[in-house]
Amino acid sequence: MSNINLKYLAKELNMSISTVSRALRDEWDVSEETKIRVNALAKKLNYTPNPFASSLRRQSSQTIAVVVPEIANNFFTLAIDGIETVARYKNYHVLIYITHDDYEREKSIINHFQNGRIDGVIMSVSSDSKDYTHLSELHEKGVPIVFFDRVCHEIETTKISTDDFTSSFKATEHLIQNGCKQIAFLSLTQHLSIESKRKAGYLEALLKYNITPNDNWIVECTNDHAVSEAKIKTLLSSTNRPAGVFTTVEKLAIQTYKICQDLNIRIPKQLQVLSYANLITAPLLNPPLTTITQPAFDIGTTAAETLFSHLKKKQHTIPNENIVLKSTLYIRHSTVKL
Amino acid sequence: MSNINLKYLAKELNMSISTVSRALRDEWDVSEETKIRVNALAKKLNYTPNPFASSLRRQSSQTIAVVVPEIANNFFTLAIDGIETVARYKNYHVLIYITHDDYEREKSIINHFQNGRIDGVIMSVSSDSKDYTHLSELHEKGVPIVFFDRVCHEIETTKISTDDFTSSFKATEHLIQNGCKQIAFLSLTQHLSIESKRKAGYLEALLKYNITPNDNWIVECTNDHAVSEAKIKTLLSSTNRPAGVFTTVEKLAIQTYKICQDLNIRIPKQLQVLSYANLITAPLLNPPLTTITQPAFDIGTTAAETLFSHLKKKQHTIPNENIVLKSTLYIRHSTVKL
Repeated sequence: MSNINLKYLAKELNMSISTVSRALRDEWDVSEETKIRVNALAKKLNYTPNPFASSLRRQSSQTIAVVVPEIANNFFTLAIDGIETVARYKNYHVLIYITHDDYEREKSIINHFQNGRIDGVIMSVSSDSKDYTHLSELHEKGVPIVFFDRVCHEIETTKISTDDFTSSFKATEHLIQNGCKQIAFLSLTQHLSIESKRKAGYLEALLKYNITPNDNWIVECTNDHAVSEAKIKTLLSSTNRPAGVFTTVEKLAIQTYKICQDLNIRIPKQLQVLSYANLITAPLLNPPLTTITQPAFDIGTTAAETLFSHLKKKQHTIPNENIVLKSTLYIRHSTVKL
Repeated sequence: MSNINLKYLAKELNMSISTVSRALRDEWDVSEETKIRVNALAKKLNYTPNPFASSLRRQSSQTIAVVVPEIANNFFTLAIDGIETVARYKNYHVLIYITHDDYEREKSIINHFQNGRIDGVIMSVSSDSKDYTHLSELHEKGVPIVFFDRVCHEIETTKISTDDFTSSFKATEHLIQNGCKQIAFLSLTQHLSIESKRKAGYLEALLKYNITPNDNWIVECTNDHAVSEAKIKTLLSSTNRPAGVFTTVEKLAIQTYKICQDLNIRIPKQLQVLSYANLITAPLLNPPLTTITQPAFDIGTTAAETLFSHLKKKQHTIPNENIVLKSTLYIRHSTVKL
């Protein structure tokens, strides 16, 4: 049998691939008993490690990968900037991969890492991902992963996110206190934990003020610009138009502004608008956009510091914990007291 | 002698590293005579290729690298989008590297490629680069490079750029025809060929209309936000203030807008502003910004198609040519006839 590999050994032994691999490498955190069992089976089945792969895996590549859904978004460019600032100090190269929010592309990128060319991964999952097998496989192979913003709760590692529920609650409350009670909520897919938390914060604020949510005003948009545009146009052209729009990503706020320009809807008089955004031009828009701004740069540095502290002391796994940073509500002229 | 390498052989033989390497690999485009000379010396000096490196180099990694100065810039994100669209179709992975306009970082990234992990490079050089040895070394090693936008004329390969002189000339002429003759020109370093072409276009337009350039109004900014801000503030606070500002990168236009907000200078009445920009929010700014917009996505696809057509037929070098695409002047409310 020539195609005996780690996966096969792991299955036969009913162990994780990572344990088998570490046992064969005689690492400290595997018990003697396990090492004996693994090596006995490896010998019996005449298993030889792929020298090319293992040489690559042993030597540090001094390279980490950052996997993000998009870069045409100031949140991600700022987070990457934070990651690069730390990486540069640690003398690491940073490779950036874009999934375009596409599950298949994300899977292909993650599988690409299994050749051992990178020392670790910092990642924000694609909104299209419903299955995380590709991530757990990579994780089990011993490639350290840290998640940020769009985290994957299924993997036991550190996740850096922001106070999505609270910041969303406060932003909705701000609109209500402005006298704006008919608030639409525009988001991307609800598969993402951050999106469902933001929606929960919005609903909780409505509940607090005894406002019944209107299902027609909770709009799930997509990454397809035309699809989102049609949905927002329908919403804003309807006779039963909301008085405010809360968008969870900056591109939906930009689309809302453009549609208001086209439909001649005046912001904030006829429609109040606020959004999660790290948009550098937010204060320069007509009118300046109220934003919930995530500490994107700090998220990046925190993620990178977590990963590098792990890479330094190789034997420890990354702790399974959630680090939550706070966002800030910047009130600008797109939301005013009526 | 154990450290006989390709470079040493090349020097001894007075040939390029690329020729020696190709001769040893018995490639078709090297003459028999050269192959005999190279192999004779290699044998005499007991040269053995680094098997790790050469195995990596022979096998296609199905990966290309994109090297850009920054990603917090819509021009580059759109160009990357174009590159990725083609790469995806060709089943290639795209690694993105950011130089942060820093020569040392660019050099370190380029040297990182010499391990053969990538099949080709698409690149826009850093504004900080004054020496291109690192690029010519990579090129000589046979790694194909295509430049876009901020091109390097010293390397014989295909360069994709836009009509910088003409578009700059037309934009300046537009301001003059609006009655705005006192025009400041804000750029990054003049080391970049695109920046010097844009300046030449600006000066040519002034010349055509018999306007003497004012040296105080030609401001070389830097990537340091604070430095640029101070320079623009000085310019716009001076008693001899220009009537118009032409910026060559979108971030300088955004800074100009912010400073006008701070100093209470009204655009366009007190200052006309236009800029090279692919800013998605340009039509939504207060006032909407007149832009010279480069066909960024098309630049990306053209660069990628050039590289992939070369990778397909390995034996040909990439033609040494300049492909010039046209930019478009979008006139918006930041520049009006007075």
